[in-house]
Amino acid sequence: MPRTDSLGKITGAARYAADLFLPRTLYAKILRSPYAHARILNIDTSRAEKLPGVKAIVCGKEIIPYKWGIFKQTRDQYLLAVDKVRYIGEEVAAVASIDEEIAEEALSLINVDYEQLPSVFDPLEAIEEGSPQLHEHVERNIGFTASVEFGDVDAAFRNSDRVYEDKIVTSKISHLQMEPYAVLANYNQTGKLDVWVPNQSPFTKRRALSNALGIPLPKIRVHHINIGGGFGGRSDTNPAEFIVSLLSIKAKRPVKITYTREETMIATRHKHPATVEIKLAVNLDGTITGKDVKIVMDGGAYMSSGIVAANTPYVYAESIYRVPNQRYEAIRVYTNKTTCSMHRTHGSQYVLAEETMIERIAEDLGLDSVEMRMRHACRAGDVLPSGSKITSYALHETIEKAVEISGWREKKGKLPEGHGIGIACAGSFAGFNLGFRLNSSALIKFNEDGSCTLFTGNVDNGQGNESMMVQIASDVLDIPMDSIALVCADSELTPQDPGNYPMLAAFCSGNAVRLAAADAKRQILGIAAEKIGLPSSDLDIRDGVVFAGESPEKSFPLSGVIKRAFSKGAAILGRGSYTPKAQSEYGWANWPGGKIQGQHGATYTDGTTVAEVRVDKETGMVKVLSIVQAYDCGFALNPMAVEGQWEGVAVEMMGETLYGKLTWDKNGRVINNSLLDYLIPTALDMPEIRTAIVESIDPEGPFGAKEAGISGGPGVQAAIANAIYNAIGVRIKEIPVTPESILACLKGGA
Amino acid sequence: MPRTDSLGKITGAARYAADLFLPRTLYAKILRSPYAHARILNIDTSRAEKLPGVKAIVCGKEIIPYKWGIFKQTRDQYLLAVDKVRYIGEEVAAVASIDEEIAEEALSLINVDYEQLPSVFDPLEAIEEGSPQLHEHVERNIGFTASVEFGDVDAAFRNSDRVYEDKIVTSKISHLQMEPYAVLANYNQTGKLDVWVPNQSPFTKRRALSNALGIPLPKIRVHHINIGGGFGGRSDTNPAEFIVSLLSIKAKRPVKITYTREETMIATRHKHPATVEIKLAVNLDGTITGKDVKIVMDGGAYMSSGIVAANTPYVYAESIYRVPNQRYEAIRVYTNKTTCSMHRTHGSQYVLAEETMIERIAEDLGLDSVEMRMRHACRAGDVLPSGSKITSYALHETIEKAVEISGWREKKGKLPEGHGIGIACAGSFAGFNLGFRLNSSALIKFNEDGSCTLFTGNVDNGQGNESMMVQIASDVLDIPMDSIALVCADSELTPQDPGNYPMLAAFCSGNAVRLAAADAKRQILGIAAEKIGLPSSDLDIRDGVVFAGESPEKSFPLSGVIKRAFSKGAAILGRGSYTPKAQSEYGWANWPGGKIQGQHGATYTDGTTVAEVRVDKETGMVKVLSIVQAYDCGFALNPMAVEGQWEGVAVEMMGETLYGKLTWDKNGRVINNSLLDYLIPTALDMPEIRTAIVESIDPEGPFGAKEAGISGGPGVQAAIANAIYNAIGVRIKEIPVTPESILACLKGGA
Repeated sequence: MPRTDSLGKITGAARYAADLFLPRTLYAKILRSPYAHARILNIDTSRAEKLPGVKAIVCGKEIIPYKWGIFKQTRDQYLLAVDKVRYIGEEVAAVASIDEEIAEEALSLINVDYEQLPSVFDPLEAIEEGSPQLHEHVERNIGFTASVEFGDVDAAFRNSDRVYEDKIVTSKISHLQMEPYAVLANYNQTGKLDVWVPNQSPFTKRRALSNALGIPLPKIRVHHINIGGGFGGRSDTNPAEFIVSLLSIKAKRPVKITYTREETMIATRHKHPATVEIKLAVNLDGTITGKDVKIVMDGGAYMSSGIVAANTPYVYAESIYRVPNQRYEAIRVYTNKTTCSMHRTHGSQYVLAEETMIERIAEDLGLDSVEMRMRHACRAGDVLPSGSKITSYALHETIEKAVEISGWREKKGKLPEGHGIGIACAGSFAGFNLGFRLNSSALIKFNEDGSCTLFTGNVDNGQGNESMMVQIASDVLDIPMDSIALVCADSELTPQDPGNYPMLAAFCSGNAVRLAAADAKRQILGIAAEKIGLPSSDLDIRDGVVFAGESPEKSFPLSGVIKRAFSKGAAILGRGSYTPKAQSEYGWANWPGGKIQGQHGATYTDGTTVAEVRVDKETGMVKVLSIVQAYDCGFALNPMAVEGQWEGVAVEMMGETLYGKLTWDKNGRVINNSLLDYLIPTALDMPEIRTAIVESIDPEGPFGAKEAGISGGPGVQAAIANAIYNAIGVRIKEIPVTPESILACLKGGA
Repeated sequence: MPRTDSLGKITGAARYAADLFLPRTLYAKILRSPYAHARILNIDTSRAEKLPGVKAIVCGKEIIPYKWGIFKQTRDQYLLAVDKVRYIGEEVAAVASIDEEIAEEALSLINVDYEQLPSVFDPLEAIEEGSPQLHEHVERNIGFTASVEFGDVDAAFRNSDRVYEDKIVTSKISHLQMEPYAVLANYNQTGKLDVWVPNQSPFTKRRALSNALGIPLPKIRVHHINIGGGFGGRSDTNPAEFIVSLLSIKAKRPVKITYTREETMIATRHKHPATVEIKLAVNLDGTITGKDVKIVMDGGAYMSSGIVAANTPYVYAESIYRVPNQRYEAIRVYTNKTTCSMHRTHGSQYVLAEETMIERIAEDLGLDSVEMRMRHACRAGDVLPSGSKITSYALHETIEKAVEISGWREKKGKLPEGHGIGIACAGSFAGFNLGFRLNSSALIKFNEDGSCTLFTGNVDNGQGNESMMVQIASDVLDIPMDSIALVCADSELTPQDPGNYPMLAAFCSGNAVRLAAADAKRQILGIAAEKIGLPSSDLDIRDGVVFAGESPEKSFPLSGVIKRAFSKGAAILGRGSYTPKAQSEYGWANWPGGKIQGQHGATYTDGTTVAEVRVDKETGMVKVLSIVQAYDCGFALNPMAVEGQWEGVAVEMMGETLYGKLTWDKNGRVINNSLLDYLIPTALDMPEIRTAIVESIDPEGPFGAKEAGISGGPGVQAAIANAIYNAIGVRIKEIPVTPESILACLKGGA
């Protein structure tokens, strides 16, 4: 099913935030901290104010001393630095002027007096007593701890035949959306603030702006806009959104900022680097009886979605394999670096540790690692240690499918020198509770010709959500997709939707659209029934015509039904609202409230990756030859879009495994914040990717659908790491796996 | 109640079509016919095409040979002239280029070969056999005839004591919206056409564009835009909307046209000039027993809303005074002049004839004209000759009120030399059938803080409809008006609404909003009832708080209710649809279908104007000293806005009575198409205006409201004419009443 948004994107008709222009728009630039940690003694903007063309300047001292953050519990960041700066690149002051050059020049005329403070960059150092402390009242820089224990973990370790331990280290990763970050804000004379910004939820952006700026919700509109990638990095509110709004309020003109690539890479969010210590209690037959996990995450300067980041790996820890006794602790630590937030593949840090360890155990105990995975794999109907229920699951089938398609049995141990094959399982969940309300709603209004407009709050970050929503409505109503105009992701125009980060586009927004379409259909059949003289239960819509199954001669074009409705004062206006049962019937795990027990997601997804690699022992270069992605997304609404998601995330994770790493100098400055220096896979690096869709029909998902944007990611890294071990016997303990690290391991005799 | 739109309009934040700009916009200019009637032999655009900067040219021969018109019955105009031109100013070709100057230059390079044809400008000549014929198959240029007879008219005239006859002639009037007419159209690469144009209904514009261009409805969006006046002149689709769209399709870029004042005055619509012959059968006691009316309307080159224009005066003929026997015939005639359409005060031509005649009869029979009006005035409950029911009416009270406020009894016959006072009754109706479906719908969605967005298809042409819709929702929900964001008049975003020309903003759109708000309130109270533990019938909303009347301590802020709804999967989404009983229960008079019997409007309005004038017998100059407007609008939702309407239309009609007249030279060219030459009242000409709101609560109107934008107009002209007679004894037979005509009458001894 071709996507409805493709034509606009390939022709250039689709407009992104950086493309926008309003008459009299001013251009903003932000003055950023040159120090990783410093006290701000004074900011003097007087020279800059005198520069002709400068229309507004804002800095921390003059703004409302309001701290924001995703959760009430973690509001730790001013709209602009007030007392201190905590990383190189932090926003200190901003200028709006008639062009970007003058704004740049004005920045150079702002004098900031800093008192430098000692910095800390390594999270393991940051949690030591006596380390430089970033935030008042946050001792040892531990911003948040997620901690839980189920069963008798100590007994499991005492009683097991073997205990395996490992430590894995991952790097700080840029989300690297191809679209540069940009904001346009227009505060007009009626007190209305219009904002255009790439986002993962216009509603949470609107709420954050309202809270921070004291403007009521009906006076803020976060507009629909095309978005060039989210990947979790656009769920949080970026300071620039507040800053540009403040400049517009002050200048009384529209203000726009377009980040340079360098700014996008240091001053928007990163993926958390983590140190994962894992310990498994295992019997000689391969049964895993206990698990003890400790994770230290480097969160950077502010909390952002750190609570979610600390909790999410536990979902992977309990929902892939059945392990009765589990202890889990994750701490998220402040350091003097760019803030980290959620990433589409967050949790891969944990999966890498567990999935490479399973290979090691299987080898050590002389077992088949595939059989070991099959033995422990969770199943539909399982109630997990935390109490979470799994309503649909197909991990066994995905393992079988991945093994079959990849030729695992034929290849494992039989590949030539330097070639290797690796396997890993992973999964995800759809719809989790963030303390926000997960209600998604949708509306449909019909036109007199039988076409309609669909309204959904859901946002499309590039994954195809817009098309999915139209497809669902089209299917329920049996009218062509191009008869449906879509209005989406606009805080003023569309019904409530919590947004994309809780992985709910298909499951929640999709269900809301399904219900709205069903409501409209009910109305249509009711009107038609009066006219045709048969009960509406005997009627159905087929391809834009209402007809009676028993009396096909009694048909009625949809346009006729609508016109009849209009003349009877009964416009066709369908509405649908959906909240997952996980919320309305089970008890949510309430992460922001510190409650890790309970239902973690509305439903779970699962799957298996097999990777094949060739390693050049002379150069240390790893070439990924092929990746097989066998995943369970529930019913695949649009198989082509699902495959696109799994292919995309495979390449993204391959890049993260082999090249991705933001590198910092000793002063806390990113030294590879450009597309020249920060490496990602290009066309020449592409492996062959095969996908297999496994459909465990979810009882609650729309048509049985669950989620496809996330699950395919976390296992890829581990599969590649396992394939490298299979090829050259080097165990991967740190990513990215650089040629230098391979050579060092080979030299050291891994 | 201050209007919600005022702040935007006075600060300049409100954007009108001419203010808009999209990146890469091209500017259009239209080549217009220099002849009133000619055959187009050839159009050569080859030289213009070569001019650098020209991006697209369209002319009639290359476009779809589709004829459009408001009603299917009267599609008589190509999108651009194809075979013939029928008035000076008709659209012949159009150019889009990078600026207006180049577009102008390109026009001068287009060669059109015409064969001139004989023209006809006077409608009375046009209906003679042998006159030049404008349209094939339309003999004697009679485009439409409205004709009806009730009772025994001939007998009434045979049996009456006296028969009075008169003939009144009115002029062609410009609607003269202060906003120049402008269109921006953008047909993008996805096949979507976005249009911004001042309009009285985005839905009928969308339908016209869809029919003419063959683009399906969901691919056309007519956007909300601020509008600088409608007055009936923007209900019709102007050729430029098609032309600019065609240019955008051809150039693949946005295209904009902004008419000059001169173009706005010759190439948009005019008010119909009419010759009204009226004959009344009257007994010596003043009882009117029969009426015979013949109207010839000069329609100009095309039909536009000619059907409505021909029928509407009959509504005035039967709904002001009870006259049992009536004959009515109105013919609308094609002439080689600019097309006429509806005007806010259309029907004033008829009212002028009848109301001046009543004064004459009263004087002739020695009766009190006020008493004569009181005796005949219609009442609520009347069933009119056509079968129309009057559900609420207060004409008697308005007469009394106008007489009282104006001091009529003290002044009539006692004013100094050259001073005079005149009275006239009029009225209007709300919601009439145009063969479209009158259904108005509205939606309300609530935000988590208890604020909401209201969606209505109704459009605001400056009369205050936006504010009215917000006020109705605010009242039903008892939340402040500024807690309500409004989305209106956008064919894609808002529910169906037929638009403003059938005078239904308050009555139909207002009712839809009321119902949507009530639906939302029901949902809110239902959710609150669960929480509070009382039946929802015990609960109410007061100022944003839900509370129980019996247990005031059990209150619950609205925001808490919405959040509770969200968490239970029940967003608050109110919907309302309204169709007047006139449509759903009574039989509509179907004008386009030729059926003048039946219900003409959903409800009727009524009222009385008294004007006082001073006439300078030396110069012939008339100064209107004061106007009293006592009208019945049903319940006055916003008295300040109602007064604004009645004051505005009083001035508009005063201008039409004394100065307004488009003047044509012998070739058919308008010679006063500028604000310098076309006269309207300015600040110095303002009379004292007093308004009195009389409220006949309508059983069906929202809160009893009916209509206020139209009714205050048609009586003003007659009241001034009667005052002039009272002042100087000159009977007004033609308007405008110029100083020259006064002097001529005085000289001739009227």
